[in-house]
Amino acid sequence: MTIDSPVRLSAGEGPGHPERTPRLDTLYRGFEAELLVPLWTEIGELMPAQPASKAVPHLWRWRNLLPLAEQAGGLVPVGRGGERRAIALANPGLGGRPFATPTLWAAIQYLNPAEDAPVHRHTQNAFRFVVEGEGVWTVVDGDPVAMRRGDFLPQAGWHWHGHHNRTDRPMAWIDGLDIPFQYAADATFFEFGPDEVETHETPEYSRSERLWGYPGLRPLTHLRPTPATPLLAYRWEQTDRALTEQLALEAEGHAVTVEPGHAAVRYTNPTTGEDVLPTIRTEFHRLRPGTETAARREVGSSVFQVFDGVGEVTVGQTRWPVERGDLFVVPSWQSLTLAAGTGLDLFRFTDAPIFERLNLARKGS
Amino acid sequence: MTIDSPVRLSAGEGPGHPERTPRLDTLYRGFEAELLVPLWTEIGELMPAQPASKAVPHLWRWRNLLPLAEQAGGLVPVGRGGERRAIALANPGLGGRPFATPTLWAAIQYLNPAEDAPVHRHTQNAFRFVVEGEGVWTVVDGDPVAMRRGDFLPQAGWHWHGHHNRTDRPMAWIDGLDIPFQYAADATFFEFGPDEVETHETPEYSRSERLWGYPGLRPLTHLRPTPATPLLAYRWEQTDRALTEQLALEAEGHAVTVEPGHAAVRYTNPTTGEDVLPTIRTEFHRLRPGTETAARREVGSSVFQVFDGVGEVTVGQTRWPVERGDLFVVPSWQSLTLAAGTGLDLFRFTDAPIFERLNLARKGS
Amino acid sequence: MTIDSPVRLSAGEGPGHPERTPRLDTLYRGFEAELLVPLWTEIGELMPAQPASKAVPHLWRWRNLLPLAEQAGGLVPVGRGGERRAIALANPGLGGRPFATPTLWAAIQYLNPAEDAPVHRHTQNAFRFVVEGEGVWTVVDGDPVAMRRGDFLPQAGWHWHGHHNRTDRPMAWIDGLDIPFQYAADATFFEFGPDEVETHETPEYSRSERLWGYPGLRPLTHLRPTPATPLLAYRWEQTDRALTEQLALEAEGHAVTVEPGHAAVRYTNPTTGEDVLPTIRTEFHRLRPGTETAARREVGSSVFQVFDGVGEVTVGQTRWPVERGDLFVVPSWQSLTLAAGTGLDLFRFTDAPIFERLNLARKGS
Amino acid sequence: MTIDSPVRLSAGEGPGHPERTPRLDTLYRGFEAELLVPLWTEIGELMPAQPASKAVPHLWRWRNLLPLAEQAGGLVPVGRGGERRAIALANPGLGGRPFATPTLWAAIQYLNPAEDAPVHRHTQNAFRFVVEGEGVWTVVDGDPVAMRRGDFLPQAGWHWHGHHNRTDRPMAWIDGLDIPFQYAADATFFEFGPDEVETHETPEYSRSERLWGYPGLRPLTHLRPTPATPLLAYRWEQTDRALTEQLALEAEGHAVTVEPGHAAVRYTNPTTGEDVLPTIRTEFHRLRPGTETAARREVGSSVFQVFDGVGEVTVGQTRWPVERGDLFVVPSWQSLTLAAGTGLDLFRFTDAPIFERLNLARKGS
Repeated sequence: MTIDSPVRLSAGEGPGHPERTPRLDTLYRGFEAELLVPLWTEIGELMPAQPASKAVPHLWRWRNLLPLAEQAGGLVPVGRGGERRAIALANPGLGGRPFATPTLWAAIQYLNPAEDAPVHRHTQNAFRFVVEGEGVWTVVDGDPVAMRRGDFLPQAGWHWHGHHNRTDRPMAWIDGLDIPFQYAADATFFEFGPDEVETHETPEYSRSERLWGYPGLRPLTHLRPTPATPLLAYRWEQTDRALTEQLALEAEGHAVTVEPGHAAVRYTNPTTGEDVLPTIRTEFHRLRPGTETAARREVGSSVFQVFDGVGEVTVGQTRWPVERGDLFVVPSWQSLTLAAGTGLDLFRFTDAPIFERLNLARKGS
Repeated sequence: MTIDSPVRLSAGEGPGHPERTPRLDTLYRGFEAELLVPLWTEIGELMPAQPASKAVPHLWRWRNLLPLAEQAGGLVPVGRGGERRAIALANPGLGGRPFATPTLWAAIQYLNPAEDAPVHRHTQNAFRFVVEGEGVWTVVDGDPVAMRRGDFLPQAGWHWHGHHNRTDRPMAWIDGLDIPFQYAADATFFEFGPDEVETHETPEYSRSERLWGYPGLRPLTHLRPTPATPLLAYRWEQTDRALTEQLALEAEGHAVTVEPGHAAVRYTNPTTGEDVLPTIRTEFHRLRPGTETAARREVGSSVFQVFDGVGEVTVGQTRWPVERGDLFVVPSWQSLTLAAGTGLDLFRFTDAPIFERLNLARKGS
Repeated sequence: MTIDSPVRLSAGEGPGHPERTPRLDTLYRGFEAELLVPLWTEIGELMPAQPASKAVPHLWRWRNLLPLAEQAGGLVPVGRGGERRAIALANPGLGGRPFATPTLWAAIQYLNPAEDAPVHRHTQNAFRFVVEGEGVWTVVDGDPVAMRRGDFLPQAGWHWHGHHNRTDRPMAWIDGLDIPFQYAADATFFEFGPDEVETHETPEYSRSERLWGYPGLRPLTHLRPTPATPLLAYRWEQTDRALTEQLALEAEGHAVTVEPGHAAVRYTNPTTGEDVLPTIRTEFHRLRPGTETAARREVGSSVFQVFDGVGEVTVGQTRWPVERGDLFVVPSWQSLTLAAGTGLDLFRFTDAPIFERLNLARKGS
Repeated sequence: MTIDSPVRLSAGEGPGHPERTPRLDTLYRGFEAELLVPLWTEIGELMPAQPASKAVPHLWRWRNLLPLAEQAGGLVPVGRGGERRAIALANPGLGGRPFATPTLWAAIQYLNPAEDAPVHRHTQNAFRFVVEGEGVWTVVDGDPVAMRRGDFLPQAGWHWHGHHNRTDRPMAWIDGLDIPFQYAADATFFEFGPDEVETHETPEYSRSERLWGYPGLRPLTHLRPTPATPLLAYRWEQTDRALTEQLALEAEGHAVTVEPGHAAVRYTNPTTGEDVLPTIRTEFHRLRPGTETAARREVGSSVFQVFDGVGEVTVGQTRWPVERGDLFVVPSWQSLTLAAGTGLDLFRFTDAPIFERLNLARKGS
């Protein structure tokens, strides 16, 4: 074991660390042989004064992403095994893994006319968000859910799902999942379903929406709280109206916005009022033209997609101009400022529920 | 960025994957340039059919650990910077990091006579468990808590704590923390306190125990639920008595054991009845001589320490004889069987609360 | 004390009861003198084998109620002191008290053109339901909420509220409160506000609806759960659509109705998914023509109002034909059957949350 | 119905009330005929500015109660039908009903040597508290629980229970239940069991205590929260020690008492940390000699029993000297002050969980 030991120690330095001596070296070789690592050589890395994420702020331009997805549409089949034509953001600090942040996966998915993405299920919690286009239906447990610009489609772990495109145009959208988190925590299960989706119906509204899509009304047959939302689509008309009204109410003198000119809603599970998914929080933010938000930071990481408008975003020391479709990452405890040019609409998802449920949430400015 | 890109793709193979062509290579180079990784090349690794932990079953022998800790006692000072003379178990599957499992830290800590481990606080949840010896007091927020064989001392994140040894003998014990989890999730905060503990008092019982150590009785001044237990020591006499009575009740014909001959208690937070710490579950198991448990597996990883007795442990395909002090690791979804020789007492800690609170818990056989 | 003692005992009879003797009489006089009552004389009354409510099934005809309310409109002023022109259902079993059931108040309220019902607040939880008409605004904490046919307006305890009618027609509606419960439990606080409502505005939608009226969308400024719903109006269009879709989904083969032909929704608090009010549950039921429900009974009492259609209702041994506006009471543990003639729409309110939160709920058939 | 109508109205007076006229009389007769009662004649009584309980402060002297119970022991059999030789406190404001408060029942129960109180179960939540004596075992679901001075024995609704006395001396104790609450709310179920208790064993500790009686330790077979405590006895030694330590910690400078010289514990359910019973809160208070508490009042009613010492108690405007065994009632929203002479130990039970769970709790001074 000594030779193959994955443990390799060298003496630390500085206050609180022992001086290097032959006896210390011998001790360290003993540690290695027994697969032991002392805290005192590692503490600076493992226990920083505040979160020091390996993930870095980064921006992906929609104008670069979409053409690559289109090329993939011509070269890469969608089918059993590969499962999805999804292309993930790989944070440059995370060693080439397809992880937008240490916990979150974000990808652009692309489906050609007449294609089916085969049915499967997995413990990973997922959602889709549509920045443009329409024509694909996500079929969840046999219920076809239309996807249209501005729609948010949550999809809790371990539900069967596939996609079909019955139009004559391709469609692209964003997938968000907790793949990196579940991968690191060893919680992943995955199962194949049929190669084709159960139904190629194209209803305007899913059964889920017909059952659940009324504010505060709950079917008497569904009274137990569920860990994730039973509502499979949150339509743009509702989101847009909610944000419009928040800004209108603010203009009428009511304190209903996050800060002046900054409206925001959280997507929630109607059976609990909590986040739509157990591990992922999703929100939509709207800034009036000229609004600049206060700098904020929090434990946990976020991915934003610009839905509309132009503006400037500052994450830590990095500043980017942004426009429709652009995606950017805010690592844990990095400060974020949003500044609207002509007005800015942003979709956001984060791993915040993980920290809140484990008593690890913290916010700062 | 292309040259320095951390993303390096090669074409996948098999069903559902595209054939390698020059155009595909070009597409992949485009992905790399934009820091993108397709799902179809990664899905097998990222989304296995069931948890496929990199962590492996492993056993550390107390008879090897303790002498190394004693040697460290002679060579490595305890003080500010290194903070603790703690030597961590490094799972051979986890790349030499001091991680017993992907989420859990387990270490032997050693304190010489007259030494103080300096005061600090951190967001990591922690506990101590004493397999032998006594003479150290852990001082938590100024409250000195005696440590004695069999005692379990939980210690929630962000509380000030140090240790002092006021005897003429060294003492060793086990520390458990959620360091790997908080490190991976970027949730860590750490702050230094005084170099010496606030008090060198050596009371038999801490103030915490004097306030909280009565079954079902709660001080009227402390009626709010707290995220972690306010009781800072769970004494061996109580644990031993609870287990003895479970086996006695079983012998009298009452179904109070996990299975025949297998008594077990969970350490809980008296303000909620839930786990003592938000991220760590702790339990104590006792097997009658000759008992063999049914094979069980669950999502999430465990570390066990043999407190007393001898027996045999099977984790996945690995089988070890075990004796007092030995520590072993059960990775996620690996099956575990415990077999008592002369009787077997085991302390266990796991990351189960993480999975339960995030709706990811699963059990199998 | 003996003479004025409110306690008057006579010897019980039957098994388990002592025979009447002079010594027993002396003992009973001793009990009376000390304000004591033995269990053995009272147990049959106090601890029946199942709930034996003093409340009885009863039906109030809308065609009789409304004219009396109209007459009151001509004779009884609305103003400070009397507070509301509300006329309550007095269950014939409850001694002439204005209690529809032992826990629930139900009244018809009537407001003339140009009238204000003065502002007050009270700990009683309340709601309004509109079986016909429109033109009144309930002003809750300064937010004017329009009332229209089919609308349900919950109103949690201790919020300021008044009503104004700015049309040229009177309007009547139903008030439901937990007055009897809070009266019996001694929990009532009451405070006067201004004699006139703060605003005579007549917006189509209240600020509350503009902020909260979107399925699953929550303002980021209102993330804490509240004990009662922040949504002040549940509009008929939504309720009607939810019920229509349930029946349509049933017709398509999906199991989303309570039983064949019986659709139902519960009004819930979007911050928790639970009942709109801490003590009162509200629901809306729709029966297809010809549908007859299974007999059901439960602990706790209900009041129903027929919103539309005709049918027959059976409560315990009592059977009534019902039509629009009729109100009837189902006492605790009495069985209920609903039978639709041409179709039947019913609003229901009950005290069920009291029993569920106190672990006293029970259902039977 | 008009003639037999239980409704009898007379015109109200004062501001907000209509003047008496023949037309008003006619309207009121119409109300009576239809079983209607207007709010404006009742509002003062039903909706007072603050709780105006019909219950009044009252004290029952143990030196009077106990002899009457002893006499009952000679005259009244214990057996099926009467069920218990229990003699209840009848609050003088509550019309001769055996109700200590509008929600709570309090009784002295008395069992002769060799007697069995027959087995039954009921939805009412119950407990026993022992101010003196010993020798009776309460058998709950077949588990015999010894009763000794200072012990508190909770007993959740719908569990089978009986009592047996296997000594040669009678024993008296206090029963507390939520009979008045469940009676008013129509929630009561009751069922007879065997005439004799299942076992006449007399173990020092019940199986319940052997399983649950360890601070913070939970059997692995019992991990679900239960609505009431599974621990069937809270022993005096524990309560006494907790209170002694609180006062000792206070003397050492720690803020762990309710106020100077006033220690207190709440009995809680170890599976949740909440009250032992869904409808009843129980506490034990200890005052150092000479301590006088601040005046406090709260929504909900309490019954106290003096366990030891002498002192003076002030409830609203009433003041009594008290001594061992005396019982007194504090109605809702009446202020309470406790003053210790030689030191004062008090057991208390209240209906507070009802109000807290229904968002009706309020405190004042």
